[in-house]
Amino acid sequence: MAKNYEIALLFDFYGDLLTEKRREFFEFYYNGDLSLSEIAENEGLTRQGVFDTLKKGEQQLRGFEEKLGLVKRFRLVSEHAEQIVRLADGLRETGADVPRLAAAIREKAEEIKNSV
Amino acid sequence: MAKNYEIALLFDFYGDLLTEKRREFFEFYYNGDLSLSEIAENEGLTRQGVFDTLKKGEQQLRGFEEKLGLVKRFRLVSEHAEQIVRLADGLRETGADVPRLAAAIREKAEEIKNSV
Repeated sequence: MAKNYEIALLFDFYGDLLTEKRREFFEFYYNGDLSLSEIAENEGLTRQGVFDTLKKGEQQLRGFEEKLGLVKRFRLVSEHAEQIVRLADGLRETGADVPRLAAAIREKAEEIKNSV
Repeated sequence: MAKNYEIALLFDFYGDLLTEKRREFFEFYYNGDLSLSEIAENEGLTRQGVFDTLKKGEQQLRGFEEKLGLVKRFRLVSEHAEQIVRLADGLRETGADVPRLAAAIREKAEEIKNSV
């Protein structure tokens, strides 16, 4: 199990739905940057025990995303917002095609509204 | 229990985390627009039984939102997107202050990125 951004993101969204123990271990591992062995030592558990707890939590987080898909929705929104930032920057350039950029910005903002 | 937009919205976000029975009753009541009595009759239950199931589901949905707050986040995003639409419309007006509107659009898009 590699520490990865995807799991950290899922934890950020759905972490509060995990049991307290799983949530704590995720905090230690992903936010506190402890190793499995360090968590095991602190908690008086085996490394395997910590691994299993994190693995179960990970499966649960993936299950929430499969059912709800909210991380995917938020990611889409974030991409549209990034595009709007770039379009807005384009407006400041000399000779910018304002009507075209305005239409593109409007369209992206509507897409955001439709995906939330 | 009044049918209300807030519960329908919570159900839209978190409905797939409910048990199958609760989810079905929510579908009938909120999306299928059946009355409590009609659901009771179809399911061979009392009106009170249907009411209790929906009430428990409603509490569960509110609990998800208390823990995750995703509906609140999405609502904020939607408001920002609406403001961007209006700013983009302002760009098309004669004599529009393009640099000011571009800066405002950029700021709103950044706010969206920060809230997702």
